[in-house]
Amino acid sequence: MADFPKAVRVNEEGPREGFQFEKGPIPTARKIQLIDSLSKTGLKKIQVVSFVSPKAVPSMIDAEEVVKGFTPVPGVSYTGLWLNEKGLQRALATGRLDVRGSISQTASEKFLQRNQKRTLEENLKAQDSIIAMFKANGVPVERASIMAAFGCNFEGDISTSRILNLCERIFGIAARHELNIKVLSLADTMAWATPLSIRRVVGAVREKYPNLDISLHLHDTRGMGIANAYAGLEMGVASYDAAVAGLGGCPFAGHGGAAGNVCTEDLVFMCQEMGIETGVDLDALIESARLAEDIVGHPLPGSVMKGGTLANLRSKIAAA
Amino acid sequence: MADFPKAVRVNEEGPREGFQFEKGPIPTARKIQLIDSLSKTGLKKIQVVSFVSPKAVPSMIDAEEVVKGFTPVPGVSYTGLWLNEKGLQRALATGRLDVRGSISQTASEKFLQRNQKRTLEENLKAQDSIIAMFKANGVPVERASIMAAFGCNFEGDISTSRILNLCERIFGIAARHELNIKVLSLADTMAWATPLSIRRVVGAVREKYPNLDISLHLHDTRGMGIANAYAGLEMGVASYDAAVAGLGGCPFAGHGGAAGNVCTEDLVFMCQEMGIETGVDLDALIESARLAEDIVGHPLPGSVMKGGTLANLRSKIAAA
Repeated sequence: MADFPKAVRVNEEGPREGFQFEKGPIPTARKIQLIDSLSKTGLKKIQVVSFVSPKAVPSMIDAEEVVKGFTPVPGVSYTGLWLNEKGLQRALATGRLDVRGSISQTASEKFLQRNQKRTLEENLKAQDSIIAMFKANGVPVERASIMAAFGCNFEGDISTSRILNLCERIFGIAARHELNIKVLSLADTMAWATPLSIRRVVGAVREKYPNLDISLHLHDTRGMGIANAYAGLEMGVASYDAAVAGLGGCPFAGHGGAAGNVCTEDLVFMCQEMGIETGVDLDALIESARLAEDIVGHPLPGSVMKGGTLANLRSKIAAA
Repeated sequence: MADFPKAVRVNEEGPREGFQFEKGPIPTARKIQLIDSLSKTGLKKIQVVSFVSPKAVPSMIDAEEVVKGFTPVPGVSYTGLWLNEKGLQRALATGRLDVRGSISQTASEKFLQRNQKRTLEENLKAQDSIIAMFKANGVPVERASIMAAFGCNFEGDISTSRILNLCERIFGIAARHELNIKVLSLADTMAWATPLSIRRVVGAVREKYPNLDISLHLHDTRGMGIANAYAGLEMGVASYDAAVAGLGGCPFAGHGGAAGNVCTEDLVFMCQEMGIETGVDLDALIESARLAEDIVGHPLPGSVMKGGTLANLRSKIAAA
C-alpha cells in the first residue's frame, strides 16, 4: 500500500524556532522550563538555541545561559544552530551540545543572492572553507541539507533536476573531503511543498541515492505540513523536524500567519495512529505544548493539544 | 503514482456548519453576505442553513430569512440540513433550495443510542418510513451517508467490516424501494480518521462498489483534515465537504478546539497545486474566508488565507 517506515525520528526545533520568532522577551528560566519538559517526552533530539548576533535576533541573547540551565537527559541529543565560525565556537564552548557540521546548500539562486549575496556556484565553492572550519574545530560532518528545496518566494518553483544536480555537487564535495554523508535534509523553507512535490522530489532523490537517509524540514504556512509529512511517510522518510505546539507559527493573520514548522504532537499523533513508532509519550508532549502556549502567552496552531488524543478516548471507553 | 481524480467537487458547508457553531448571534444580513460572496467563487454546492428547532440551535432561528435573502447564482446548488419531516417541509417551502433525500446511517451503535435512542438495527428499519416521507414530498433519493465511519468518541474504533455491512444493508433498502444510490458520503464526524484509515475504508468500499461515487466529510479537530483529504485524492475520491476558513473550528482551546470541517481554501489550494481541477477561484475564496473571519469576529483556522497563495507569488516573480 505504501512504503511506511516502521519508526520515525522526530527532531524537536520548537525552543529554537519558536522563541526566535516570538516578539516579546521570554525569560530565560521559562525557555529552560520548556526544554526540560520536552526532555521528558521521549524525543531524542532537541534544538535548543541559535548562536546568532543578538542584534539580528534579540531573543537569542541568552543562548549560553539557556544551554547552561537545562538538565540534560541521557540519550537525548541537544543541538544548536549557528551561521558562522563565531557561532560554531560559541556552541562548542558550551560543552553541552551535540555539535555536528553539515554541507548546507540552498536550491534557490535568488534566495541565496538576497540573503548571502552569493550565486549557487559561489555557495558550492564556499563549502571548502566551511568544511575546513569544521575539521579545524573537530566537528564531524555526516549531513547535507538543501534549503528551499520545494520552491522559493523569490525564485518560484524549483525543478527536481536542480535538486538532483545539487545532490551530485554535494556528494562531489564530500568525496573530495573524504566525508561520508549519511543524511540529506530537504527543507521546505518557504512552504511551497505539496504532498505531490514531496513525492516527486523525495522519489527522485531516493531513486538516485537509495542508501541515503532523507530528513524533511516542513513548514505549515499554507496548511500542508501534516499532509506533506504523510507523503514523506509514504515514501519511507523516517526523519522529520517539527516544533511542539507548532511554535514559530501563530493563528493570527496579523502575526505573520501560521508560519511555523509542522507541529510535533500532531505529527506524533498521526504516526502513532498509523502504527509507526516514534518513542514519544504523546500525553507528555501535549503537556509540553500547553506549556509552550503558556510561555508565549498566545494560542499556538497545534490541533491535537486542543482536540485530544484518541488513545485517551479509547481508555475512557474501555473503562466505562 | 496515485489514482488522483482529474477534478473534484467541493461542497461548501461553512455557512451552515460555521454559524451553527458560533455562540454569539450573527445578523441575518451578514450570513447572507457570506453566502453571496461564496456564490461568486465558482463553488457549485453551498449548504446555507439548517432547519432545526430554534430551541436546540438558536443561531438558526432566521433560516427562512437567510434563504429568502441570498441572491442565487445560476449553476450553484444551495442546500439545507434537516433532521425530521418538519425540517424537510420548511426546506421545501422556501422554494429556493436543492432538496434531496438520503439514506443516512451511523456506524456507531453507542452514538446512535445517545443521540437518537435507537440501535443500528432500529435505525436501519426506520429508513422505510423516512424514504416514504421523501417519496410523499417528491424528494429524490440518490445518496447514502454513514456518520462516524472512522471512529466514535463513545464507541471507539469502527471496523471496516461494519462499514461494508452497513453498505450492504443500505443497498438492500435502496433496492427494496427501487432507489438508485449514486453517492456514498463517509463522514469522519468525530475526527478519528487518519490517512491510513481513509485508505483502508475507502479502499474496501471502492473495491466492493467500484461504480459508487464516494464523498468525504472530514473534520480537522486533530489536525488531520488536509492529510485525510490527500489520502482520499490518492484513492480517487472526487467529492469533499469543506468549510470556508475552517468555519466551525476555532484556534482557541477554550472555544472547543479546532473542531471544524476541513478548510475549503486550503483544500482547493492543495488540489490546484497538484493539478486537480476544482473550478474555484482561490483568490475569491480567500476573500470569502476573510469575510467569514470578519463576521464571526475572531480568528479562524484556515492557513492559506494567512500564508497567501503560490499563484500570486509566481505572478509577482514573473512581473519582477
